[in-house]
Amino acid sequence: MKNQAYRMALLYDFYSAVLTDRQREFFDLYYNEDLSLAEIAENYDITRQGVRDVIVRAESSMQDLEDKTGLIRRFRAMRGEFEEIENAANGILELNAKYNDPALEALAVQIQKKAEAMKDE
Amino acid sequence: MKNQAYRMALLYDFYSAVLTDRQREFFDLYYNEDLSLAEIAENYDITRQGVRDVIVRAESSMQDLEDKTGLIRRFRAMRGEFEEIENAANGILELNAKYNDPALEALAVQIQKKAEAMKDE
Repeated sequence: MKNQAYRMALLYDFYSAVLTDRQREFFDLYYNEDLSLAEIAENYDITRQGVRDVIVRAESSMQDLEDKTGLIRRFRAMRGEFEEIENAANGILELNAKYNDPALEALAVQIQKKAEAMKDE
Repeated sequence: MKNQAYRMALLYDFYSAVLTDRQREFFDLYYNEDLSLAEIAENYDITRQGVRDVIVRAESSMQDLEDKTGLIRRFRAMRGEFEEIENAANGILELNAKYNDPALEALAVQIQKKAEAMKDE
């Protein structure tokens, strides 16, 4: 299951709050802390299959929510826009080398910083 | 209930997909189409209280999801950033009146347009 780590990280970031405590715990141990199913099973004294079931159910609750709401998709589109805005702000800063206008520079840097912060939000 | 129209519109925009068909229908008629509880009750041949229960349950499912995930809050923060970026881009356009640089103008307009589109996303 671990080849889907990026998708899982996004799901977890957006939707982990809807999971049960146990689902969240196992999901976190498996995907974020990188424990194996067998290790989690041993720590919690249940079967490997039991651990797997909890994680699969957690994933499917979160994926179902994303399929319905599309919010991760919407967020990623916004982040893409911030990235393009950052590039345009960099372009403005380069052009300002000609004019050396501090007010212009300040505004472009403000845009650049905001866009940079938000694209990782 | 209708004094919460803005909050309801946001909840509906983000989370209506998790509602049952009937919850979505009544919620939409009441908040978006502005029918009264009595009108919906009459159209569907159920009691006014029955309609109210469906709508209250719909609202509480969506609010619960927002309380857990905070995604509307996150989105609104992003929109606020787009608004500030738009203002900064406007400032750059004003400064460019001095330089009349078409490349600079194009970049600032690009930022302005993106930010304007995204703040209403």
